[in-house]
Amino acid sequence: MLPNPTLSLSGDRFTVVYAIRAAAEAEARTRARDVALEQTVEFPEELTPPGDILQQVVGRIESLQPAGEARWKAAISYAVETAGVELTQLLNVMFGNSSIKPGLRVERFDLPASLLAAFPGPGFGRQGLREYLGVPERPLLCTALKPMGLNAVELAGLAYKFALGGIDIIKDDHGLANQPFAPFEERVQRCAEAVARANHETGRKAIYMPNVTAPAHEVVGRALFAKGAGAGGLLIAPGITGLDAMRRLALDRHLNLPVMSHPALQGSFVTSPDSGISHYALFGQIARLAGADATIYPNWGGRFSFSKEECQAIAAGSAVPMGAVKPAFPTPGGGMTLERIPEMFEVYGKDVIFLVGGGLFKQGPDLVENCRHFLSMIS
Amino acid sequence: MLPNPTLSLSGDRFTVVYAIRAAAEAEARTRARDVALEQTVEFPEELTPPGDILQQVVGRIESLQPAGEARWKAAISYAVETAGVELTQLLNVMFGNSSIKPGLRVERFDLPASLLAAFPGPGFGRQGLREYLGVPERPLLCTALKPMGLNAVELAGLAYKFALGGIDIIKDDHGLANQPFAPFEERVQRCAEAVARANHETGRKAIYMPNVTAPAHEVVGRALFAKGAGAGGLLIAPGITGLDAMRRLALDRHLNLPVMSHPALQGSFVTSPDSGISHYALFGQIARLAGADATIYPNWGGRFSFSKEECQAIAAGSAVPMGAVKPAFPTPGGGMTLERIPEMFEVYGKDVIFLVGGGLFKQGPDLVENCRHFLSMIS
Repeated sequence: MLPNPTLSLSGDRFTVVYAIRAAAEAEARTRARDVALEQTVEFPEELTPPGDILQQVVGRIESLQPAGEARWKAAISYAVETAGVELTQLLNVMFGNSSIKPGLRVERFDLPASLLAAFPGPGFGRQGLREYLGVPERPLLCTALKPMGLNAVELAGLAYKFALGGIDIIKDDHGLANQPFAPFEERVQRCAEAVARANHETGRKAIYMPNVTAPAHEVVGRALFAKGAGAGGLLIAPGITGLDAMRRLALDRHLNLPVMSHPALQGSFVTSPDSGISHYALFGQIARLAGADATIYPNWGGRFSFSKEECQAIAAGSAVPMGAVKPAFPTPGGGMTLERIPEMFEVYGKDVIFLVGGGLFKQGPDLVENCRHFLSMIS
Repeated sequence: MLPNPTLSLSGDRFTVVYAIRAAAEAEARTRARDVALEQTVEFPEELTPPGDILQQVVGRIESLQPAGEARWKAAISYAVETAGVELTQLLNVMFGNSSIKPGLRVERFDLPASLLAAFPGPGFGRQGLREYLGVPERPLLCTALKPMGLNAVELAGLAYKFALGGIDIIKDDHGLANQPFAPFEERVQRCAEAVARANHETGRKAIYMPNVTAPAHEVVGRALFAKGAGAGGLLIAPGITGLDAMRRLALDRHLNLPVMSHPALQGSFVTSPDSGISHYALFGQIARLAGADATIYPNWGGRFSFSKEECQAIAAGSAVPMGAVKPAFPTPGGGMTLERIPEMFEVYGKDVIFLVGGGLFKQGPDLVENCRHFLSMIS
């Protein structure tokens, strides 16, 4: 009833490793085969045209191995043509419908050079961001402007102190959007000006990163406004805007600004240990593929529940070789205090951005001094 | 150290009901308070400015009730100003950072008229889609063009048969993007033409709905191309593009086309029973707020694991009164066969779109006859 076309395919394939919950190998193999069909033809196997569609388009189980109790790892490869050279469709082939099935988890993936060439990734990467900020060696320091409810003048006042005290990246809290408390344009102008003024005094290159998480048709416009107002980078939450909106910002030659990814609304991918997407793949590999120069996530031992191993996996995914896709900075935050810095330094080494928000206010009554103390801890 | 501003707020608040995992009431209350802070000021309570920011901007626990073993329901209200009249920020306040915390789940929400006025929701809704398709009473029929790997001529051949047989909505499989097998523009032109040709023969008003899930800067362009080519609606997977991209399509006066939401990559919100977002809120309330005229989800008893109760909850959320936001059509699919139709009819009633894909090929060798049989089952 269906045509059985002969296709002209490159033979290039990308591979996704899934963790599969299954009692025994036969069940694991059945589930892996289901994934291979679901993510491509989405068609019953017996009805799928038996030629190139079944042989080439349907995913191929490259390996299946036990990985603990009732847990298996399946490497499934897909023809690069299924992804159509678009991040949106690549994500769809990796995990679109399978996201709806409990007990399936994307652990990691491997893209061939032909596909990687379509995704330049971070515009700056670790080395580029270091040069941009004039910080060749030590960890970078980041804090957030908050709380929501302060007006643009008040936020700019904080930004000035942070920059004066030696913070490298002063970002909007991700909850600052375009509310009446501190409307986007006024906030961006005032905060960028405040950081420039502090830089003029210190001779440093601190940057202000406004939050451009915004309605679909406004993301690029806000980013361009920010660039014009003197912002030195962009913060975006791709769980809210879609990952491709971040990729779009990273690619834009008129912007040419570093991009920091915030994990808001992405948490449900990682809250289950055996469903969703691994920390390594989501906050490491995928964030980079989508253009993040820095990838924020909650550090272990703060307000959130990531383990130390999960945080280390993110740092690993942020640097794993992926063709010409540059490594990103792991940016652990989420309730960090200055007391935690030595321990974090030991685990992450120098290639890290330390994100301390409310904790910067706890050290003492003088915010500028607190920042200087923060800087002294890692210099 | 921080300013303590006096704010001018409307007093209007929206309310989100969270399910909270906690052993005892005191722990549940602590967790609820954490949510109220995390979703707004993201600041330690003791450092939060004690005036209007702590009293008005921070979320307010309106009620906390037991809801089963180690489970509580907390209704938390937020000032409408925190959401800044943007869907992206509304979602962020509802669940942005809290998505990263296991054992927290958005159950449902309630928006005041002032906020609902900013979100027109579906352009057509149930009644509008019925009028558009000329089907006043019975359930609507939908199928998908697949499998990936067929070319545009072959897909158009299927579309013609589906329309001839009486299917109302012939959508792209959500895996058809812009691959070399059947590039977007050629596919849309051929399939729209095929459905128009069939309509000319049958006198019916079947529509073709291409998939416009695409890179951020191409979604609207593909939708406009589709409109120009004669497509009668749009399919989009907001889990991939971001929900606001769907809202943008639904609002566009130049498009003025019904929009169908596909659940790809949204599954991780619902695979855990006590984390994420409820089926009711995600596929019902949120889909509507983001403009979906029809909301696809996997029916119980198919290839996926939603329960009958979860499916009924989606149907309820797709019709719950939300100001002027129209009800959407629940669109259960995911491995449905014609045998399941009578049971589904009984549960959903007539206000449903039955989505049958591969199952349409199983009935017999003549695809047009299979479609006619499908139609006869619900007429």
